Amino acid sequence: MKLLCDRIRKDGQILPGNVLKVDGFVNHQIDVRLFSEMGRAFYQAYRDCGVNKILTIESSGIGIACFTAQFFDVPVVFAKKSRTSNIPDAVYAAPVHSYTHGNDYQATVATRLLGAKDRVLIIDDFLANGSALRGLCELCRQAGARVVGAGIVIEKAFQPGGRELRAEGLRIESLAVIESMDERGVTFAEESLR
Amino acid sequence: MKLLCDRIRKDGQILPGNVLKVDGFVNHQIDVRLFSEMGRAFYQAYRDCGVNKILTIESSGIGIACFTAQFFDVPVVFAKKSRTSNIPDAVYAAPVHSYTHGNDYQATVATRLLGAKDRVLIIDDFLANGSALRGLCELCRQAGARVVGAGIVIEKAFQPGGRELRAEGLRIESLAVIESMDERGVTFAEESLR
Repeated sequence: MKLLCDRIRKDGQILPGNVLKVDGFVNHQIDVRLFSEMGRAFYQAYRDCGVNKILTIESSGIGIACFTAQFFDVPVVFAKKSRTSNIPDAVYAAPVHSYTHGNDYQATVATRLLGAKDRVLIIDDFLANGSALRGLCELCRQAGARVVGAGIVIEKAFQPGGRELRAEGLRIESLAVIESMDERGVTFAEESLR
Repeated sequence: MKLLCDRIRKDGQILPGNVLKVDGFVNHQIDVRLFSEMGRAFYQAYRDCGVNKILTIESSGIGIACFTAQFFDVPVVFAKKSRTSNIPDAVYAAPVHSYTHGNDYQATVATRLLGAKDRVLIIDDFLANGSALRGLCELCRQAGARVVGAGIVIEKAFQPGGRELRAEGLRIESLAVIESMDERGVTFAEESLR
């Protein structure tokens, strides 16, 4: 998505350790026009898939999930992050490792909010090692829900999550695919620039 | 807002300790049509106030903030919750006590995302003791930003936050004002039912 790639080049900051900081427009301040266009792009990709629920994880997935859900006219469920395995009954739970924060947590969804009739589109802001996305897929597996695919704002293709999950059969549509980044800037995959 | 009060009566659950559980449509699963109507209601209340930024706090404020921001066509900034006072430089920070979770945290916003030119509408899902709302006001004070008011989805008027903050001069518009609740149900303030 050219609009997004241009914005990353203009306002993104590259920090040591392959950290791309986009907090001015994605995950601390939200640009609502950009998010609406991103939601529309996910809708165009998945409009014929019978999606009846959007699943994301708190906190930074919620905004883009909401904008996407408007186009589909379906509810958003956001998984919660629980730091302990001491979670109440009646939730699905899956372990997630955060490389960004260097910790582990449980992603949980109340069992009555996800079930076998659901055709789920998973939405998240970043895909790198794929731990969160894998956890969300696992929640759907526990619920008997069908995952039709994932919509990702920014994929770091030089980290293995996207490649591994696609190899396992998951459809993933990423709006900005970063092939490499260093102090000189970001190189996007060709298809992201259209 | 009658639509919201009817929904609370239909799908809300009252748990011991004055807990109103609305996770099926507000703070775990999000009903996008309801949220869009709530965003419209906040816009109608504050449309003439020159709002140029929506401020909320992660996680459950983000959805309603996004829907509200679409009507105003302004960015959303969501304050982050930090469990330690060991926070990086270049943020505004204010202490918040969570009565729900029984803990304290710092609400933080990057200094470059909030400033003296901002006219801020604060949005949140619940108002009870007012600690989060007070923290968000404090972040604006530190930034020199003007708070034009707050938009709250559900206010528990039998807890002191709303009364105290209004007495200090803050304008607060709440869509569902609960005067009392017990095992028999919820009593809304008269004006919420229109």
